[in-house]
Amino acid sequence: MPEQAVTAQSEDFSRWYNEIVYRADLAAPSPVRGCVIIKPYGYEVWEGIKAGLDRRFKATGHQNAYFPLFIPESYIKREAEHVEGFSPELAVVTHAGGKELEEPLVVRPTSETVIGEAFSDWIQSYRDLPLLINQWANVVRWELRTRPFLRTAEFLWQEGHTAHATHDDAEAETMQMLDIYAEFAHDDAAIPVIKGEKSRLERFAGALRTYTIEAMMRDKRALQSGTSHNLGQNFAKAFDIRYLAESNQQEYCWTTSWGLSTRMVGAVVMAHGDDKGLRLPPVLAPHQVVIVPIYRRDAQRGAVMETVERLRLTLVEAGIRVHVDLREGQSPGFKFNDWEMRGVPLRLEVGPKDVEKDSAVLARRDRLGRAGKSFVPQAGIAAAAEELLAAIQRSLLEDARQFRDEHIQDARSYSELREVIETGDWARAAWAGSDADELQVKEQTGATIRCFPFDAGASSPCVKTGKPAERVALFAKAY
Amino acid sequence: MPEQAVTAQSEDFSRWYNEIVYRADLAAPSPVRGCVIIKPYGYEVWEGIKAGLDRRFKATGHQNAYFPLFIPESYIKREAEHVEGFSPELAVVTHAGGKELEEPLVVRPTSETVIGEAFSDWIQSYRDLPLLINQWANVVRWELRTRPFLRTAEFLWQEGHTAHATHDDAEAETMQMLDIYAEFAHDDAAIPVIKGEKSRLERFAGALRTYTIEAMMRDKRALQSGTSHNLGQNFAKAFDIRYLAESNQQEYCWTTSWGLSTRMVGAVVMAHGDDKGLRLPPVLAPHQVVIVPIYRRDAQRGAVMETVERLRLTLVEAGIRVHVDLREGQSPGFKFNDWEMRGVPLRLEVGPKDVEKDSAVLARRDRLGRAGKSFVPQAGIAAAAEELLAAIQRSLLEDARQFRDEHIQDARSYSELREVIETGDWARAAWAGSDADELQVKEQTGATIRCFPFDAGASSPCVKTGKPAERVALFAKAY
Repeated sequence: MPEQAVTAQSEDFSRWYNEIVYRADLAAPSPVRGCVIIKPYGYEVWEGIKAGLDRRFKATGHQNAYFPLFIPESYIKREAEHVEGFSPELAVVTHAGGKELEEPLVVRPTSETVIGEAFSDWIQSYRDLPLLINQWANVVRWELRTRPFLRTAEFLWQEGHTAHATHDDAEAETMQMLDIYAEFAHDDAAIPVIKGEKSRLERFAGALRTYTIEAMMRDKRALQSGTSHNLGQNFAKAFDIRYLAESNQQEYCWTTSWGLSTRMVGAVVMAHGDDKGLRLPPVLAPHQVVIVPIYRRDAQRGAVMETVERLRLTLVEAGIRVHVDLREGQSPGFKFNDWEMRGVPLRLEVGPKDVEKDSAVLARRDRLGRAGKSFVPQAGIAAAAEELLAAIQRSLLEDARQFRDEHIQDARSYSELREVIETGDWARAAWAGSDADELQVKEQTGATIRCFPFDAGASSPCVKTGKPAERVALFAKAY
Repeated sequence: MPEQAVTAQSEDFSRWYNEIVYRADLAAPSPVRGCVIIKPYGYEVWEGIKAGLDRRFKATGHQNAYFPLFIPESYIKREAEHVEGFSPELAVVTHAGGKELEEPLVVRPTSETVIGEAFSDWIQSYRDLPLLINQWANVVRWELRTRPFLRTAEFLWQEGHTAHATHDDAEAETMQMLDIYAEFAHDDAAIPVIKGEKSRLERFAGALRTYTIEAMMRDKRALQSGTSHNLGQNFAKAFDIRYLAESNQQEYCWTTSWGLSTRMVGAVVMAHGDDKGLRLPPVLAPHQVVIVPIYRRDAQRGAVMETVERLRLTLVEAGIRVHVDLREGQSPGFKFNDWEMRGVPLRLEVGPKDVEKDSAVLARRDRLGRAGKSFVPQAGIAAAAEELLAAIQRSLLEDARQFRDEHIQDARSYSELREVIETGDWARAAWAGSDADELQVKEQTGATIRCFPFDAGASSPCVKTGKPAERVALFAKAY
């Protein structure tokens, strides 16, 4: 059956996104409002993300643990800003075991409160610090407008929670974890992100400072892809997390939290995809190589399949994730399109002529057509595939970097900022405005301050107020 | 600080269990009724369990996916036995986003219903079968009496859900997964389990047949450690899971489900632990070897620590999980006791004399005292550790098997059955009773039918009714 082509990104990016997510089998709609089902192909991408992060967390001394899904309602209320930030989004269990509960239980939207309560039990003295915990879990935030992976009522994530003796230790941890997110995005997801600090308005509810990695999608919108919070002593004071210092004084701890979610799957889709569909970075691709056997007559089948199986084994032995498309009744052309849509980095074609000549064809997903095809001897298949996979990983990163850099413009005045945002690009502008100024920019342009990038200092006055500015802000429309 | 000794198993097994769980830092109490916090040491055991199962699931063609936490209340009600079985244990979300929901959402106690609904969308024809899905998730069952790992309001598990074209395919899958559970228990957890079928009374709510692996704990109670269900066409009919057969007829699928949970952590504690504490099987132990540096004077420290670090690296390179106990201000004796309590399979002691003689001491957790000590040359440390770890894995399994076999007795009459159960042992008895007979045994003895083991056929009449019996039942008091 001929499949309809995917909507072009330029025509309707949002529709393109939904089509790809469902047609590439990353997710399926669910009967529960605002929730999706993560299908095996999408879940494998998430497993790759988990593995890449978990390895880095453990290498920096963090340990996984698991805390309850339910949080007593009174806990959420203990930190004033926290309750204000999360109250509108809570799902609440009022009945259990056939009875009404004495105190309603909130389904965790994030776990600072219940983990804060635990930390206050676990930490006695400076010897117990730092305490470095991570949790892989599901969380629920009752959002009104949802989109698969980007914003769903329930999502999967990791949330790190740490406690430290001093402000500086907590700050160093906050930055270390932001760096780990950025390194993961860069090396594994092939997404060049911009690290920076969030404005007061965009800060996590209850944090002293929030840092973020911001990525540019192919429609030029920004996607906040991971955040790391220095919580100061706010939660330590609300949950009485204290330690006996070497000085023999009781001191409040300094805590941090940091999270990255299944939203990253959406980031991979929107940072790399094209009009043909997904383009998965080899590090995260469930199948790095798909083998499509090609034969016209049944007489050719045996020899082709024998070669296919031999090449498959060679690639598997080299540590490459391989899938053989054995579907009957589908033409090679249909299969090529299907796997291009599903974003497999490399396609290996094996036909009767290849069997004869001891060769095979490798076709790159990131360079369609003749330009991306290599004719390689079968004996060198593993080395050739490894080299091409590395090249694809680099080229996706480079593509994304180039696209991003072409679409960030400096704005020296407020009218320039408005013009830049109108083109869809991101605007870099000196900023010294108030919260009210920031809100006005949002109302007038639709853009928000994504972050104050670390590597930029201001050399001109604030674009909005004309006041002397110390920082440069990055403005963009965002998901 | 001197720690109090652990309560002896013989004195109060239940208290022993709770003490070990908390003192070995497997779990911590939580402020949420019926829930515990799984601490890093316990979570690492669970990570080992997950890895061992996930590998086996994938090797047999299963794929992971993720389905919503919330299930519309109406779904639960669609399969008549299912709703009857689970209704009393449900936690219900009635409010979300500040509003009362039109339809309450149940927090999943298990996912047959929501996955059944998805399968009915995904499956069109026989080409889509078998559909082999697994989910790693948290579930909630509002139990009245809870115990860490064994029975908690929320727990972590995997639930497999598959759909097939025929009854026989579904039955083969059900048995394959039971075999995988048994193999995992045997090879990884060193627990020899008994495979068999559950009685009608103990069947999963909505299943045609339920199979189980049953393990004997050190207090001789039985622990149901994993179950595999042939669901027949019950859920397929309730959720309209149909496929177009090769005959061009619409047919209902045959489905299965199977689950194993964090309860397995409790099984490991209770199947192997002794009066000194935990004894972890090497395959699942977070630390397989703990190194305790020993020195009296600061002058000795440098040389000892240099050797410790060298041996640590050698072991890590051999793929062994090693922890060095660097705690200051604690005596070696304290550390020995602490790690024995925490069940680390092998302790490596390095003192000034070992440095001098190029040797080291390896001490087995499963054989305390002199009998379990080996003096090995440092050059052969990795090989010696590997060999001992394999020996410990075998000996824990052998211990558990011997203990189990010593405590299962044949009962040829009802009075013999009562006597056997009174000693705490398990009774093997020919059975042809009704549900009412089975309930009466439970009332009169406290024992339930754990399963009808596969490998046993009856050669005498039913112990309760005197009727001709085809099957042998295993009776025991259980968790």
